[in-house]
Amino acid sequence: MATFGDIGVAAAINIISAFVFLIAFAILRLQPVNDRVYFPKWYIKGLRTSRTASGAFVKKFVNLDYRSYIKFLNWVPDALTMPESELIDHAGLDSAVYLRIYLLGLKIFIPIFLLTWAILIPVNWTNNTLERSNETFSQIDKLSISNIPHGSPRFWAHVAMAYVVTIWTCFMLKKEYETIANMRFYFLQSEKPRADQFTVLVKNVPRDVDETLSETVQHFFLVNHHDNYLTHQVVCNANKLAKLVKKKHKKQNWLDYYQIKFSKNPLKRPTMKTGFHGLWGAKVDAIEYHEAEIEKLSNEIAEERKNVMNDPKAIMPAAFVSFKTRWGAAVCAQTQQARNPTLWLTDWAPEPRDVYWKNLAIPYVSLTIRKVLMGVAFFFLTFFFMIPITFVQSLANIEGIEKAVPFLKPIIDVKPIKSFIQGFLPGIMLKIFLMLLPRLLMLMSKFEGYFSISRLERRSASRYYLFKIVNVFLGSIIAGAAFEQLNTFLHQSANRIPETIGIAIPMKATFFITYIMVDGWSGTAGEILRLKALIIYHLKNLFLVKTERDREKAMNPGSIGFNTGEPQIQFYFLIGLVYAVVTPLLIPFILVFFCLAFVIYRHQIINVYNPKYESRAAFWPDVHGRVITALIISQILLMGLLSTKHAVASTPVLLALPILTIGFHIYCKGRFEPAFTRYPLQEAMNKDTLDQVREPNLKGNLKGYLEKAYLHPVFKDEDYEDHYDDGSLVMPTKRQARRNTPGTSRTSGGLGPLLPEIILEEHKP
Amino acid sequence: MATFGDIGVAAAINIISAFVFLIAFAILRLQPVNDRVYFPKWYIKGLRTSRTASGAFVKKFVNLDYRSYIKFLNWVPDALTMPESELIDHAGLDSAVYLRIYLLGLKIFIPIFLLTWAILIPVNWTNNTLERSNETFSQIDKLSISNIPHGSPRFWAHVAMAYVVTIWTCFMLKKEYETIANMRFYFLQSEKPRADQFTVLVKNVPRDVDETLSETVQHFFLVNHHDNYLTHQVVCNANKLAKLVKKKHKKQNWLDYYQIKFSKNPLKRPTMKTGFHGLWGAKVDAIEYHEAEIEKLSNEIAEERKNVMNDPKAIMPAAFVSFKTRWGAAVCAQTQQARNPTLWLTDWAPEPRDVYWKNLAIPYVSLTIRKVLMGVAFFFLTFFFMIPITFVQSLANIEGIEKAVPFLKPIIDVKPIKSFIQGFLPGIMLKIFLMLLPRLLMLMSKFEGYFSISRLERRSASRYYLFKIVNVFLGSIIAGAAFEQLNTFLHQSANRIPETIGIAIPMKATFFITYIMVDGWSGTAGEILRLKALIIYHLKNLFLVKTERDREKAMNPGSIGFNTGEPQIQFYFLIGLVYAVVTPLLIPFILVFFCLAFVIYRHQIINVYNPKYESRAAFWPDVHGRVITALIISQILLMGLLSTKHAVASTPVLLALPILTIGFHIYCKGRFEPAFTRYPLQEAMNKDTLDQVREPNLKGNLKGYLEKAYLHPVFKDEDYEDHYDDGSLVMPTKRQARRNTPGTSRTSGGLGPLLPEIILEEHKP
Repeated sequence: MATFGDIGVAAAINIISAFVFLIAFAILRLQPVNDRVYFPKWYIKGLRTSRTASGAFVKKFVNLDYRSYIKFLNWVPDALTMPESELIDHAGLDSAVYLRIYLLGLKIFIPIFLLTWAILIPVNWTNNTLERSNETFSQIDKLSISNIPHGSPRFWAHVAMAYVVTIWTCFMLKKEYETIANMRFYFLQSEKPRADQFTVLVKNVPRDVDETLSETVQHFFLVNHHDNYLTHQVVCNANKLAKLVKKKHKKQNWLDYYQIKFSKNPLKRPTMKTGFHGLWGAKVDAIEYHEAEIEKLSNEIAEERKNVMNDPKAIMPAAFVSFKTRWGAAVCAQTQQARNPTLWLTDWAPEPRDVYWKNLAIPYVSLTIRKVLMGVAFFFLTFFFMIPITFVQSLANIEGIEKAVPFLKPIIDVKPIKSFIQGFLPGIMLKIFLMLLPRLLMLMSKFEGYFSISRLERRSASRYYLFKIVNVFLGSIIAGAAFEQLNTFLHQSANRIPETIGIAIPMKATFFITYIMVDGWSGTAGEILRLKALIIYHLKNLFLVKTERDREKAMNPGSIGFNTGEPQIQFYFLIGLVYAVVTPLLIPFILVFFCLAFVIYRHQIINVYNPKYESRAAFWPDVHGRVITALIISQILLMGLLSTKHAVASTPVLLALPILTIGFHIYCKGRFEPAFTRYPLQEAMNKDTLDQVREPNLKGNLKGYLEKAYLHPVFKDEDYEDHYDDGSLVMPTKRQARRNTPGTSRTSGGLGPLLPEIILEEHKP
Repeated sequence: MATFGDIGVAAAINIISAFVFLIAFAILRLQPVNDRVYFPKWYIKGLRTSRTASGAFVKKFVNLDYRSYIKFLNWVPDALTMPESELIDHAGLDSAVYLRIYLLGLKIFIPIFLLTWAILIPVNWTNNTLERSNETFSQIDKLSISNIPHGSPRFWAHVAMAYVVTIWTCFMLKKEYETIANMRFYFLQSEKPRADQFTVLVKNVPRDVDETLSETVQHFFLVNHHDNYLTHQVVCNANKLAKLVKKKHKKQNWLDYYQIKFSKNPLKRPTMKTGFHGLWGAKVDAIEYHEAEIEKLSNEIAEERKNVMNDPKAIMPAAFVSFKTRWGAAVCAQTQQARNPTLWLTDWAPEPRDVYWKNLAIPYVSLTIRKVLMGVAFFFLTFFFMIPITFVQSLANIEGIEKAVPFLKPIIDVKPIKSFIQGFLPGIMLKIFLMLLPRLLMLMSKFEGYFSISRLERRSASRYYLFKIVNVFLGSIIAGAAFEQLNTFLHQSANRIPETIGIAIPMKATFFITYIMVDGWSGTAGEILRLKALIIYHLKNLFLVKTERDREKAMNPGSIGFNTGEPQIQFYFLIGLVYAVVTPLLIPFILVFFCLAFVIYRHQIINVYNPKYESRAAFWPDVHGRVITALIISQILLMGLLSTKHAVASTPVLLALPILTIGFHIYCKGRFEPAFTRYPLQEAMNKDTLDQVREPNLKGNLKGYLEKAYLHPVFKDEDYEDHYDDGSLVMPTKRQARRNTPGTSRTSGGLGPLLPEIILEEHKP
């Protein structure tokens, strides 16, 4: 068991490493050469451009102004001062609401921290159970519930505190749910007209032998929604076409590169090898080769495009149907259309840029099978993932490697190398798997066939959270692989399970404190450094960037990464709620995490991340549900723990807690969740009426716009990868408009004062 | 353990008693005096009236024609020959579909019977495990799974049969669900225009300080459904008024009675006592007294009526909103109206006669609390109902009675009386409780606040079924009260529970065979006799019937009683599926029940029952779900049983069954359930268009009709109890039209040949 001293040392190490990260960031971000790594959001918004400044060559790469180094932490107030409404304008509602998860953590845990420290720590401390027992213990255990003697009436303090924690958490959750539902409605009401507000995605359109699919759709909606139907766009399977276009695009890029190279050195025509990645094969003239390849691909594309347009097999039985009013779309999205409820399925269309086009081509029938398959796969992944890893680990031992590659034997037998392999290889295997896990989960979600990127991320996040509960939380508390736990639980009586886990909870407090410091403090501080992005950007810049467009791509701002980030936060909610009553000492560590993460992610959202979509906070019901899950887990484990402490009378009192919590959840689900899944007719009618007044000529433009809004991007523009339209109907996309204007950061209206200081520095004469 | 002989005796007794019931019925139904007990449906339909025939006095009461006694069973072909489409016309879709539950039983169990007898009985029989063991056993056990030695490969036959049973049951369930969904759509399409097709019940209308509730409703729907809104009817709390009207009605009846009495015997003015039920108190002139009372009540009613109309507190925040088209109503019923999802809640309005008016006055806020309360109450009722009964039983022993009423001591001490009390009293207590249970459950459902009688009955049925599973099924298999089981299960490991029950299953086969014969054979045969209704009718006729209207009320045809009847059938599905593989010997007993019940209930539906409402088979999803539940229970118990037989390899194979069954259920829920809860827009539009062609002047009449369709019956007609409108808009109600016409049974079109022979006999010259 760790002592205060041990924890102090660990805390010192982690605080120092966090500071190192922050200082490194403070220095690196001031260097102009890193500008595109640390402020890509502003580039994308067109408020900042690459400088072709005239100054000294060095100045282009390194910031020599010593004054800027002094105030190395002043990005923090910058990150915090932008008001929320402006943040929503700047980065979208999703990002703003995402930050509120951290705030929610603070709102929940600060009062819990104060109360538990004021009440439970004295209650725990003023016993001497541990001293009288023969077991070894540490000062930390003296502060935890372990120090209370069996059957003591003091346990009632813990029971009361469990009630306080539950009531407070539920109260904050309800307030937050309400706020976010209102934010969402306000956002919807204040948005410009957008394609997805008028459009419904219709799936499983029945085939008709006499009509084309487009005609079937038109006839159906003309008959059944004759007052509201406006237009529609049939979905076609353009996956192959998209692949070809992408390929052509790559070749085009290479052609640009060689042409630039040739123009710089006109004496030598660039050559290349045709083999794998230009490593071997016949040597040819690069420009000619690429021109020929592009020619060939262009023909193929034209062919395929014709195919997609005319082949009825390429037309999927789905369509984006647009209506004259939001009211009409709301009605269609919420009602059942046909007698057979598996035909003519309607649902809100995602934003055009949120559509995951590939999955639209999946036949609807196979979706259920895919879901079942992935459910089974996820079950095995969660409970049995250790089996293949152990197997690989057993293969990857010294003897195995020596056998497989005997010529390496002399090297492996060198002592330090040998011990390195023996010590680290198994750990590295596991680490690689865990790093790949979110991608694997994302692939699984994609296989399940969700139609929008936002749904894919939400789905992956739920699964990642479940995986973390089983393998990190339970796995740390009860040593042993998950499938062994499963086996134990199946053979144990139902009410023994919480006891088994409950007993182990207080003993693992120090482990989780260390975990929080490593993953939550240093890890989060590391996030702001963007070390990986920094290295990759510079590597790409050195070796791969051939054109301006490439540089823009190399910038890779990334996004929040809901599918990995949110489960991480939720894990802290879980630990915090479980330990709030058991070992209150842990809470301040979690508070530090929430503070730090809030500041850092707010900075990143303002300066770095570029969201791929705007789901209007559609993820909040998931967030809410997972906090409720954590709360219920904490209540059940406390019950298990107390029942082993011979505080039997407390069990029935505690039993009410999960029931109340589930009741609260059902209430919230009924009261707030519809705000995230449906569009009330009153709101739709309201917005329609407002629009008629504000933009009377909208009606005329609507059809022309909506007809093309949901065209597969490959048809809109060959250069489609970057040009995802955000679906806004009237608003000119700033990015397009300002891409080539010179940096206007100083004068760009309300955003001026918020720009990082570096810009202001630069503009000095 | 019972032998074949024992079962033969029990069967003989039950067959004889069933035959006695049938013969008694055959004789009683031929007596003209019982005509209103055995053919009330025809009286209600107006196809039969009380005879004031001139013939002999005796002939009015007793049928003296010997020929009619010979063919005493020919009501059976009569009951079976009416085609289903005619049955739907005659008794409604609900009744026709209810009969299909029995048919479903036959369809499922006949092939299972043939297969299991052909395969499993030889497989079980050709072992001699039981002979070699030292335990006592009977021939019945030799035919069951108990006769297979531990770990024998013969168990694979049972596993395979479990698969066959599951697949066949699911197949039949799917077919039936599909058929009934289509029947429902067909019925909806062919119905005449009815108020409930155009009307939506809006609950939780927010109060507005500046407007009356009626104005608020009108404004809201004029704005948000401006193309479709037609009219509305606010719901008011007329419970008190209804009570007063009922009271007045009773007095009026007594007045009629005394006036008739006086007119027959004009010499003596009738007198009565004013006390409780006329048993004591001052003697007054009955006619004058009643006239004064009616006068007083009339004033009170007028007062209360004014109150209800004008007092805003009596107006409930709910309204029946009617639309111009079915499409408009379908849209409104399926969509969310306001931002706050707990306001402006819309749902299909039930038929006017199906509305349970009392519950419309319950404030919506309290509904959740009521539901939770009833959930908890039901849990305790199910698991702990034995406690108060045991308590009462312990009070009601000899000593207790002697102490409480010492003067009865001499009587009680008489030996036969003493032993009767000791032997029967506890059993009678339990029996009384079980008889009261459906009423108790119905009261609980009413307390929960459902708005329609059909929903109330469905809810009670689910709970009754659960109660039966826990207390009759599990309670018979594992001796011991339910709360003891609960305690055992909580302290047992999760996978031991099915084993504990599974082991006991084969041993209880004879018990359930006897149960089927007593409850299923004799009980069902007893149903046709209507002994209770017969006795009450004649008692009422003798003592209470004062007017013609009273006689009509005394007829009391009753209805199917979905809340008690359906759980009973489901119980046979459960036993049948559980024993299909374990003890196939039991199946034919169930088949006899299904056959007998089908014939008897078909007869009763044609001749007796008068349904209170027409829910258009809305109960089918419940029926389907409960058969699925039974199937899953049977699979889990078989798994438990086989795992104790050391047929370990079978467990994983059997594990797939419940998973597949749940998958099948989810599929059916998605595919068919919406047909019972939603009205697809295509269907609505279709029917609207048809109506426009068929009844072009409907549109004009619609408003006038719908304005009054959902008026509280107490406002429509003081004599409201019997005059529940069935909501049909155009069709003249036969009952009203033909009530006073002479019996036209012979000439009444298609129904003629189906009338019981007695009518034909009578009309002979």
